[in-house]
Amino acid sequence: MTVTYTGQVPNGSTFGCFWKVLGIWRGSVYKLVWRELVAYLFLYYSINFLYRFGLNQDQKKIFERVQLYFSQHTETIPMSFVLGFYVTLVVKRWWEQYRLLPWPDTLALFLNAGIPGADERQRLMRRNVVRYAVLAYVITLQRVSLRVRKRFPTHQHIVDSGLMLESEKKIFELMDTKTPMSKYWMPLVWATNLIIRARKENLINSDQLVQTILMELSEIRRRLGSLIGYDTVCVPLVYTQVVSLALYLYFIAALLGRQFVAVGPPKEVTTKEHPDMYFPFFTAIQFCFYVGWLKVAEVLINPFGEDDDDIELNWLIDRHIKAAYMIVDEMHEEHPELLKDQYWD
Amino acid sequence: MTVTYTGQVPNGSTFGCFWKVLGIWRGSVYKLVWRELVAYLFLYYSINFLYRFGLNQDQKKIFERVQLYFSQHTETIPMSFVLGFYVTLVVKRWWEQYRLLPWPDTLALFLNAGIPGADERQRLMRRNVVRYAVLAYVITLQRVSLRVRKRFPTHQHIVDSGLMLESEKKIFELMDTKTPMSKYWMPLVWATNLIIRARKENLINSDQLVQTILMELSEIRRRLGSLIGYDTVCVPLVYTQVVSLALYLYFIAALLGRQFVAVGPPKEVTTKEHPDMYFPFFTAIQFCFYVGWLKVAEVLINPFGEDDDDIELNWLIDRHIKAAYMIVDEMHEEHPELLKDQYWD
Amino acid sequence: MTVTYTGQVPNGSTFGCFWKVLGIWRGSVYKLVWRELVAYLFLYYSINFLYRFGLNQDQKKIFERVQLYFSQHTETIPMSFVLGFYVTLVVKRWWEQYRLLPWPDTLALFLNAGIPGADERQRLMRRNVVRYAVLAYVITLQRVSLRVRKRFPTHQHIVDSGLMLESEKKIFELMDTKTPMSKYWMPLVWATNLIIRARKENLINSDQLVQTILMELSEIRRRLGSLIGYDTVCVPLVYTQVVSLALYLYFIAALLGRQFVAVGPPKEVTTKEHPDMYFPFFTAIQFCFYVGWLKVAEVLINPFGEDDDDIELNWLIDRHIKAAYMIVDEMHEEHPELLKDQYWD
Amino acid sequence: MTVTYTGQVPNGSTFGCFWKVLGIWRGSVYKLVWRELVAYLFLYYSINFLYRFGLNQDQKKIFERVQLYFSQHTETIPMSFVLGFYVTLVVKRWWEQYRLLPWPDTLALFLNAGIPGADERQRLMRRNVVRYAVLAYVITLQRVSLRVRKRFPTHQHIVDSGLMLESEKKIFELMDTKTPMSKYWMPLVWATNLIIRARKENLINSDQLVQTILMELSEIRRRLGSLIGYDTVCVPLVYTQVVSLALYLYFIAALLGRQFVAVGPPKEVTTKEHPDMYFPFFTAIQFCFYVGWLKVAEVLINPFGEDDDDIELNWLIDRHIKAAYMIVDEMHEEHPELLKDQYWD
Amino acid sequence: MTVTYTGQVPNGSTFGCFWKVLGIWRGSVYKLVWRELVAYLFLYYSINFLYRFGLNQDQKKIFERVQLYFSQHTETIPMSFVLGFYVTLVVKRWWEQYRLLPWPDTLALFLNAGIPGADERQRLMRRNVVRYAVLAYVITLQRVSLRVRKRFPTHQHIVDSGLMLESEKKIFELMDTKTPMSKYWMPLVWATNLIIRARKENLINSDQLVQTILMELSEIRRRLGSLIGYDTVCVPLVYTQVVSLALYLYFIAALLGRQFVAVGPPKEVTTKEHPDMYFPFFTAIQFCFYVGWLKVAEVLINPFGEDDDDIELNWLIDRHIKAAYMIVDEMHEEHPELLKDQYWD
Repeated sequence: MTVTYTGQVPNGSTFGCFWKVLGIWRGSVYKLVWRELVAYLFLYYSINFLYRFGLNQDQKKIFERVQLYFSQHTETIPMSFVLGFYVTLVVKRWWEQYRLLPWPDTLALFLNAGIPGADERQRLMRRNVVRYAVLAYVITLQRVSLRVRKRFPTHQHIVDSGLMLESEKKIFELMDTKTPMSKYWMPLVWATNLIIRARKENLINSDQLVQTILMELSEIRRRLGSLIGYDTVCVPLVYTQVVSLALYLYFIAALLGRQFVAVGPPKEVTTKEHPDMYFPFFTAIQFCFYVGWLKVAEVLINPFGEDDDDIELNWLIDRHIKAAYMIVDEMHEEHPELLKDQYWD
Repeated sequence: MTVTYTGQVPNGSTFGCFWKVLGIWRGSVYKLVWRELVAYLFLYYSINFLYRFGLNQDQKKIFERVQLYFSQHTETIPMSFVLGFYVTLVVKRWWEQYRLLPWPDTLALFLNAGIPGADERQRLMRRNVVRYAVLAYVITLQRVSLRVRKRFPTHQHIVDSGLMLESEKKIFELMDTKTPMSKYWMPLVWATNLIIRARKENLINSDQLVQTILMELSEIRRRLGSLIGYDTVCVPLVYTQVVSLALYLYFIAALLGRQFVAVGPPKEVTTKEHPDMYFPFFTAIQFCFYVGWLKVAEVLINPFGEDDDDIELNWLIDRHIKAAYMIVDEMHEEHPELLKDQYWD
Repeated sequence: MTVTYTGQVPNGSTFGCFWKVLGIWRGSVYKLVWRELVAYLFLYYSINFLYRFGLNQDQKKIFERVQLYFSQHTETIPMSFVLGFYVTLVVKRWWEQYRLLPWPDTLALFLNAGIPGADERQRLMRRNVVRYAVLAYVITLQRVSLRVRKRFPTHQHIVDSGLMLESEKKIFELMDTKTPMSKYWMPLVWATNLIIRARKENLINSDQLVQTILMELSEIRRRLGSLIGYDTVCVPLVYTQVVSLALYLYFIAALLGRQFVAVGPPKEVTTKEHPDMYFPFFTAIQFCFYVGWLKVAEVLINPFGEDDDDIELNWLIDRHIKAAYMIVDEMHEEHPELLKDQYWD
Repeated sequence: MTVTYTGQVPNGSTFGCFWKVLGIWRGSVYKLVWRELVAYLFLYYSINFLYRFGLNQDQKKIFERVQLYFSQHTETIPMSFVLGFYVTLVVKRWWEQYRLLPWPDTLALFLNAGIPGADERQRLMRRNVVRYAVLAYVITLQRVSLRVRKRFPTHQHIVDSGLMLESEKKIFELMDTKTPMSKYWMPLVWATNLIIRARKENLINSDQLVQTILMELSEIRRRLGSLIGYDTVCVPLVYTQVVSLALYLYFIAALLGRQFVAVGPPKEVTTKEHPDMYFPFFTAIQFCFYVGWLKVAEVLINPFGEDDDDIELNWLIDRHIKAAYMIVDEMHEEHPELLKDQYWD
Repeated sequence: MTVTYTGQVPNGSTFGCFWKVLGIWRGSVYKLVWRELVAYLFLYYSINFLYRFGLNQDQKKIFERVQLYFSQHTETIPMSFVLGFYVTLVVKRWWEQYRLLPWPDTLALFLNAGIPGADERQRLMRRNVVRYAVLAYVITLQRVSLRVRKRFPTHQHIVDSGLMLESEKKIFELMDTKTPMSKYWMPLVWATNLIIRARKENLINSDQLVQTILMELSEIRRRLGSLIGYDTVCVPLVYTQVVSLALYLYFIAALLGRQFVAVGPPKEVTTKEHPDMYFPFFTAIQFCFYVGWLKVAEVLINPFGEDDDDIELNWLIDRHIKAAYMIVDEMHEEHPELLKDQYWD
């Protein structure tokens, strides 16, 4: 489930508005970064103790020269710049993927309008069409989301959940023997067939409504296809690698370059320029900052995984089934009576 | 109510055009930042006085070394960069949310065209459909906006305002027992049912008009659904935390690093390099600048809160009710007579 | 009228292509900045002369220390960064507003197709509908544009211009007594009514054309509504203030920090490091650069004002009236004869 | 004609992929910058020789102080930043303009479907409608493109090319006497009239097809109108001037600041810090870099000029005439026979 | 085939999430950069050995002065900035091109609905229309993609693959003699003709469906035309050259500037400031970083080449043929039976 926190900071004009946000643990930067930070500090102190206690004077000299070289050059890579552009790209794609997720509500609305009537045949039609829409949704997400794949590892699981019928599973299996490509569009083709049949049987009264429903079905297909496209064609690997490599190498260099060493003769100069703080305070902050920034990308590059901040698709699937059935069936034509509203003059 | 000021600066070519803008208090950076600034300066001077009067010579030395370390490293975090990208993201989302708010005017226009006639039945139809559109609007915003939630804490409040009928409240309560999900789409389903009924009773003359009205209803649903999506899936928490943490740690470090200390021997060097100004002029400016910049994000991350600059949804709701009724009812078919205009040859 | 200059620089491959652009005065950075620059230099030299002639040796020392402090810290605010993001935002909004301005041409085209015939009734219909579209345009812009407000300060002025009839003004006044909200959509509702009436009288032959025209009318309404939205919900005040404040404080600090002072003992060091140039050449350039950059935002934040570069709405209104009448009336059905073209085999 | 080079670098994984691109002359940075660079170096060496041979010792001292002042401050203007944002804006607008150019193919496709039949009347209808579409295209581009204006300086040239008939020219001239505004939409109005006439004569069978064709005609009008909008409302002049001025002033300052001077006493310090290289290697690189970057904007700010990289509109016009006639006439209904494909089971 | 790796990093909250990504070889930065890096280091050490062993003392002095000059100025070009903007532009265009690739699924869905029935004539119609869609796709990609051109070098190869019939090839060849322009739209015109014929023969029942199918065909044409547009009008050459030149010159300068030289007298100063590391560790990292970053652009500037990360169009073509035939033919009307779902009350 995504971490929803805007409700906690409705008013930016309050004192220290974002402090509340800093206290959240689920999906927080602390939860994401602490393991890496502990590992990093462990390495840092290993080298630190080696230098302080493990090296003799000559080795120390060499170490100090190496340290100097590293400390001079860590800034040669403008990491903040490339991270800024990269994270912006990943965030953009993440949001586009979320926005592409189709909602069956509109289809249900149109079905309600297109195939009115509470008879069994009409109800069957409507229920089956929305079921197919949700089924296409599930089959697509099975491909792109780890969470959905865990919930529905096989077609049988979908059948068990009631979204697919046995006969349909058989057709899927038959088709799978012909070609292994994703067949998320099959339920949508069936839905189309149902619509055409309904028009023939005059359950749908006008061609305009057929057109409207078909457009909506094709819109759902377009969105599901796009989701697969986003999954297949990721952010180019080389981009991700360049950014991560730069970050990791930067902090490996910082392991040496940020050590507190007693440069040359222990005079006042030293005291003034590089006080020994025992704890690499700013290196730790920088680590949290940069690794946390990259974590934004790591969490969002696959928005359908199991992170705290990933989109809870299983919840959405359940919601869609319930809402769609509710719209096309339970709510059907019960209401409304035509009453005068309060402002009727 | 949002702060509208462009009307005060229509002409950028006047002398000191934006000075007028600097004098506005409502929604201003001063109003947003002054509390934080006072608190910050209080901390700054606490440390300052401690150093000047509370420490002995040895402690001062240690303090000066710490101060040196902090002053050297405060710039290691490229805050302006991450703030730039983050604020851009938040501003973009804020504006998209504002643009997603549906306006019932178009629907009312189409209803006017689709269900002409001044008889009671037609008027009832038209009034009910727009009422349902506004009702869906209110139910959605109840979820995402603190302001609307305060005005309409329960369904009963909506009934009292005349937007919902008693019978409809009962259906809502009945449905709520089945599943707790948001049911903002229910009034839209009812509106659809009304449209279909109107077509059956031949109050609507053509299928094209039915199609047009249905498309508009589904557009309203899409927008309301998207608003809920923006509310549920915020800017990833880790991004917000990384930015705020960086900012707060920067200024905590600056609390020490920007102290005016007498470094080492009190020679001319000192005088030249770090004159003691008693008031941390630039640190205060920087504080206003960076915290003010972050405040942009704090104010906009939840555009439906109670900030001076948040969107005044309650005003919009009132406006929509009035405008929608006016279009579908009061203005109906009174006008126009067909007259020749002034340029008629 | 906007300053159109791309026609002067069609070929980037010519020598010194943009030099021509630098010589334009209307809407230029010189015209926009010179007043501010003169005022700034006046302040600069006031301080300068005070220092050179007004202060005694001790005061000079203090002044020099203050100057040093200011010159060290002016760079602490990364202005170019925040300006870059802010100006990009304002330019984007400016362009979106320009693109949102509806053009009645498409509506006129559709009317031409939908209500053919040169009889008086058809002509009346077509002329009235486009008149209503332009009227809605004018009423909206009255609200958002200073220029249009000056041309049409009251409804009576619109009546005088022939865009509104007396009877319509009365309805507006009647409605204004009920609620003060903007009623730019009223002419569009009337236009809708006319279309429906035309369909009933069979002046329009098909429901598809009714649909097409209605969609275009609702598109015009959407655009006008969006323009009001852009006007009501500006760039958040706090953002504008943070940017302007940073800029102004930077240059106030530069007033002191950029003074040419004789630091400490007048040795060769001084000569080498801070030659006294009498005129703050680079500070002036920087001033033009940054203030000019901000002027981009000042000019564009209200694109409908009276700046040289603001959009000439009054010209557009005249053009729309003429073009719309021309399309729906004068050009009607005169042409074309069906002739074979030159390439007819 | 635009410079198409992606075909030469299909595989980024080859060794030195972009080296091939560096060798292209047409539209290259060398071709664009060399004149400016030669002029700049000429100025540089004029000053250089003046300093080396023309000045006496005292004048040299003054020169050296001025040089020092300039060399210290050239970096005060963050040019790369403003250039980055500015060029991004210009590139975006350039691409949007290219994408807005309408293609008559879709219209031809719809005409093919809407007015089937190989009789003379149908052929005349189809040919005339597409001719009008291309005519509107040419009349629009006459206004915005230097190249097209050179090819068609007057209406007569269009008549000679066969795109306009004599009778149509007369109507244009008649209308031009009434108002001087651009009348690119007139051919589209005629096309609409033709469509309506075709529907009346039952050459078009369904209102849906009329609707589809009308929508496409209005789409073409929208695009042409937008192109004129992009031409009229350019990137604000003040933005262009701020960027160019900053660039030019930077390099004027560099003319002095980058001179190799013998600072103070000719000791080893000098040798170490500012070796005299005789040729300002890096200043030249920087010049090519920044001026080349600005040239991107200079070339693209008017995408319809005569630069190597500008869009070849005349070629497009010829292509559109040929393709449109081919689709609506030559290809008509000849094909296809219905044959079974290879995979027919 | 693009490198799909998001499936390997579903959870950003795991320890060292992106480390897995760093280990991928196909399409990696290592595979792309190693050749350039080896060449670069070879040059570096050539110069290095020349300096250490090939030069006499005087030559060394000169070399050291040159080295000093280069090392001082390598940072004068803000490469990271221009690279950030440039790569963002290329990535945006790459993604837009991918998203423009049409999928025939929607068309097949509409055909299924529009031309129902399992008779040979209907099947022929449907199969031919989708075949034409895929044929237009292939003919377009032949032009823009190296891979597809290798698979289908001539029309004959397309005929052999079964996508084109002999008779159609002849028409293509006939048309090619008239004008050499790309004729990717010809199959779409044929498809349109088929649709019109189907309507005439009453195989399609409603004009709405004709409209829907025509809109989809024109959508496919629009996308294919846009792809050709992206191919013809690349990122302006001068932009690409400026970026590459800056990068290459930077590293050529670094060849000299980053050499480890013994500056002046070999005192402790030297040791402290420029320790000799024998291997230019950071220069190599920087090289990988910047060249890797540019490689992102090199790989993506032509998304249809043969890079590991380029889009596998041949696979897509095969998929489209299979899927389209499957939808319009094999799946047709077999299913579904109307069964009650599991949740039927």
